[in-house]
Amino acid sequence: MRSNLISRRDLDFLLYEWLRVEDLAAFPRFGEHSRETFDGFLDLCEDIATRHFAPHNKRNDSNEPTFDGERVTIIPEVKAAVEAFTKANLVGAGMDEEIGGLQLPAAVEAAGFSWFQAANVGTSGYLFLTIGNANLLAAHGTRDQIDHFVRPMVEGRFTGTMCLSEPQAGSSLADIVTRAEPQADGTYRLFGSKMWISGGDHELTENIVHLVLAKIPGGPAGTKGISLFVVPKFLVGADGTLGERNDVVLAGLNHKMGYRGTTNTVLNFGEGRHTPDGAPGAVGYLVGEPHRGLSYMFHMMNEARLGVGLGATALGYTGYLKSVEYARQRHQGRAVTAKDPAAPQSQIVEHADVKRMLLAQKAYVEGALALLLYCNRLVDLRRTAADEQAAREHTLLLEILTGVAKSWPSQWCLEANSLAIQVHGGYGYTREYDVEQHYRDNRLNPIHEGTHGIQGLDLLGRKVIQHEGASLRLLGERIAATVEAAERTGGDAAEFAARLDASWHRLVTVTLGMFAAGDPAAAMANSSIYLEAFGHIVVAWIWLEQMVAAADHEGDFYEGKRAAARYFFRYELPKTGPQLDLLAALDRTTLEMRDDWF
Amino acid sequence: MRSNLISRRDLDFLLYEWLRVEDLAAFPRFGEHSRETFDGFLDLCEDIATRHFAPHNKRNDSNEPTFDGERVTIIPEVKAAVEAFTKANLVGAGMDEEIGGLQLPAAVEAAGFSWFQAANVGTSGYLFLTIGNANLLAAHGTRDQIDHFVRPMVEGRFTGTMCLSEPQAGSSLADIVTRAEPQADGTYRLFGSKMWISGGDHELTENIVHLVLAKIPGGPAGTKGISLFVVPKFLVGADGTLGERNDVVLAGLNHKMGYRGTTNTVLNFGEGRHTPDGAPGAVGYLVGEPHRGLSYMFHMMNEARLGVGLGATALGYTGYLKSVEYARQRHQGRAVTAKDPAAPQSQIVEHADVKRMLLAQKAYVEGALALLLYCNRLVDLRRTAADEQAAREHTLLLEILTGVAKSWPSQWCLEANSLAIQVHGGYGYTREYDVEQHYRDNRLNPIHEGTHGIQGLDLLGRKVIQHEGASLRLLGERIAATVEAAERTGGDAAEFAARLDASWHRLVTVTLGMFAAGDPAAAMANSSIYLEAFGHIVVAWIWLEQMVAAADHEGDFYEGKRAAARYFFRYELPKTGPQLDLLAALDRTTLEMRDDWF
Repeated sequence: MRSNLISRRDLDFLLYEWLRVEDLAAFPRFGEHSRETFDGFLDLCEDIATRHFAPHNKRNDSNEPTFDGERVTIIPEVKAAVEAFTKANLVGAGMDEEIGGLQLPAAVEAAGFSWFQAANVGTSGYLFLTIGNANLLAAHGTRDQIDHFVRPMVEGRFTGTMCLSEPQAGSSLADIVTRAEPQADGTYRLFGSKMWISGGDHELTENIVHLVLAKIPGGPAGTKGISLFVVPKFLVGADGTLGERNDVVLAGLNHKMGYRGTTNTVLNFGEGRHTPDGAPGAVGYLVGEPHRGLSYMFHMMNEARLGVGLGATALGYTGYLKSVEYARQRHQGRAVTAKDPAAPQSQIVEHADVKRMLLAQKAYVEGALALLLYCNRLVDLRRTAADEQAAREHTLLLEILTGVAKSWPSQWCLEANSLAIQVHGGYGYTREYDVEQHYRDNRLNPIHEGTHGIQGLDLLGRKVIQHEGASLRLLGERIAATVEAAERTGGDAAEFAARLDASWHRLVTVTLGMFAAGDPAAAMANSSIYLEAFGHIVVAWIWLEQMVAAADHEGDFYEGKRAAARYFFRYELPKTGPQLDLLAALDRTTLEMRDDWF
Repeated sequence: MRSNLISRRDLDFLLYEWLRVEDLAAFPRFGEHSRETFDGFLDLCEDIATRHFAPHNKRNDSNEPTFDGERVTIIPEVKAAVEAFTKANLVGAGMDEEIGGLQLPAAVEAAGFSWFQAANVGTSGYLFLTIGNANLLAAHGTRDQIDHFVRPMVEGRFTGTMCLSEPQAGSSLADIVTRAEPQADGTYRLFGSKMWISGGDHELTENIVHLVLAKIPGGPAGTKGISLFVVPKFLVGADGTLGERNDVVLAGLNHKMGYRGTTNTVLNFGEGRHTPDGAPGAVGYLVGEPHRGLSYMFHMMNEARLGVGLGATALGYTGYLKSVEYARQRHQGRAVTAKDPAAPQSQIVEHADVKRMLLAQKAYVEGALALLLYCNRLVDLRRTAADEQAAREHTLLLEILTGVAKSWPSQWCLEANSLAIQVHGGYGYTREYDVEQHYRDNRLNPIHEGTHGIQGLDLLGRKVIQHEGASLRLLGERIAATVEAAERTGGDAAEFAARLDASWHRLVTVTLGMFAAGDPAAAMANSSIYLEAFGHIVVAWIWLEQMVAAADHEGDFYEGKRAAARYFFRYELPKTGPQLDLLAALDRTTLEMRDDWF
């Protein structure tokens, strides 16, 4: 079944005409695949998302999960959708065949999954958290952990969560206090409270696999003393059968502005409601080595950040398509230069300001989708790299781009949703239309998986300077290659190549100047602004890449790509000028502000 | 009763230290008043808003009005709050004593009313629409209309609405089709459907007074054929007693993302459910002359636009104060330069990026409040002007500033609410805290009373060029006077004066260039961007005014004003540079975009 949630034409352009993902089939890992299997997967995703996810998106929002102190109640369509997804073996889309997966490239998987996030981000939440959990455990778990937890997740019998935050430790994971007491049999007992746990409780599946950060008493302070544990809701016997209820209980649901379809929970571990095997504490199994939990979690976190970026993008994208449709069908007003008040009203898509709002959305959402697919292809290239040097390059690039791929769509595809509301006028503000929900849903994305501010600190304080600037340098080389290709393309592309080149060099100069000044507090004070300028320059590069890929092609689709690129270079990239001026000045306005002055 | 919904210290600064509204008492209109009565009014507003409006703000949102086909049900706290407001004679705060009003200056009235919008914008909606309606009718209605409709509104027995839009005519009022058939007795019968009518039905008061735009058959096409009518829900006898039910009925309620406490309705006129005096049609009484309805409505609309700006500001303001409070009480993370992971966590208000988000909010909301009070004082000065020349100047200035005072707070105080959520982190995204509701409520403001795009067209296509640029010139003179005063102040103020002066002159040059090019479609294509650049420059001027007023004063409050002004000049004003470049280039990207390319 077809729908207009995401443009398949655009996906085909990005995957095949630009990124040439069919070439990935030449690598042994993807040897079973071809453009044909990729297309089949995309068709399947579109069909299931359209038939099983989109129809209950509104109901999921207006009938959020409830908790009566014992059980969580969720509208039945969610379970049906989860089953449709898992029966099609989509949980394992990107996973190894050995554990039941389809071993598809991440770029293709992300393209397919964008349909689900566009259709129903609430229901999708349970599944994508499960996939992140299973990927982590498949990479770092023992054979038994894989058999007992990963395989049932791939089969759709279990779902998974990630339990990081605590009431006193949100962005600051160093401050978690959940403790894991070692037992004589090699297992652990966990005690503590976890906050903001999406999918933390429900009855959609037989069991829930929590991945929990906790501290083993006596370990180092801060992040170096954090270990990772598997804590299932129900214990699993040696033969894989479900056993006793573990001592992890739902303390309550959070009630959100949007994203209401996914339960968001406070979970208590070891409060004594259940006593598995007669002893207190929630039974947990150590993943990997003690005290290395955060590094394993970052495996999942980096993947989750791309997932958040993709979710933000999908919400922006579907809102864009809906506002285009609305603007074509709604008639209101006349051209600025028209004189006859009795003439029929125009389609609003003909008004320059409406075209501006649609072009802005197009530039944001197609730019964001391209960036996400680019990053996911880097995941594939890293995985299939012929040698360590090549793998290292893909890793360096991925590391500097991941925060941008998380934060930029979270900011600008939210803005796209705001513009989609504005195009709809008063109708867009009502719950009779879809776009207000997309806007509410999307507002979560600048907060979770590392806030906007955290991403800024991470980019400027870590990623830009790591390995003596190797990531930054490598990104600069890739941008230079695009600039050269665009110069050869000529026309607007050549003009924009010069602008991108100038912006990039200015960014590098400003970056070096900030660190050379020897005042780290001042350098870091505006790291969020740095993130925003950096993101806009990266997306300008991604748009120039698309212009080059679209060169020599004619027709509406390609004209649309060129128009959106023009919009980005003329309306958006110039915004980085004043941001870079501010950064270069090492502005101290915020540092000098005192609490008492607010 | 005191609260922290709006800063009383800031109101005092703006009203007395900057605008010197106590001087207005020298005019006969305000002769009964003094700083003492102004303060009494502000105290009263704070008290009633805090005791009767704030406590049910959340409940008003989570229990929106319902309609069972017969009656609208609203939580009882709304009626109690409306009564507390009307019993204190606040409906008449700014109205003539002759009709029962308090004859307070508009600037003082707006300051007092900001408390209600900060406390509960949903409940306030019924009252502020009533005030707008009563002001229009007091200015343009007959003696009988004033006695039968205005006085009961001032007394709190009736409420009022404004009925402009129709399903096919939202922004384009020229296209309304509601018709008013003249009757032998001088009354009219109305037939048609009105959309987006706030407060359109409820049982909070005995009667509802609708002010309705309609066309008398045979009149001119377009906006020149629009007349204005009073259409009460219940007819009113010559002695003022309520009579028969008029044929205006509720067709349905709109369900909104926010602003849920105010019913928003579709009203049908003359559908035949009721037949007053045995004949079809809703009985209406012409206001003023036929075909001049739109000009009367603009009387109300300009006032309503300042009201929308004030509402947006109040929501931003209260969100700002709540996020400052949260940032002081929440501990998370450590300074960027701190090394010890075992040290206690910092208050988040100490983090530079949090200070940035709070300073931005402060600059937006205090800048917006100052602009709104400035505009309201212009209303007072126009009303009390000694001669026509002085009155004309205040009118010219008010005309060019009204759209900015509506749209700028709608954009930036919404952004403030988004930052307030961000400061709260995950908590801000939940309905357990207030800020997510403020954000949802505030998202209406760029839409109603003339969308952002409409304000841009109005500013560039009408206000800037009217009377051969007289409004623009006059604003330039006022800005020049502020620049001179700031130069005398010295320090940062002098530096910012030079920046404002340069930005203003650039704006004027660009404006002249746009019109000189002789391509009106291109000139108007980016009118929304023009509005945004213009707004930022106006608010920079308002901040410079505040800096001058704060000069030579010491203490936390004044330091805070200077810090927010610095933030505005360093982080915000520079954003206008690329906008003005785009405008100067008469960019045709949007004009050249074709529907088929989306």
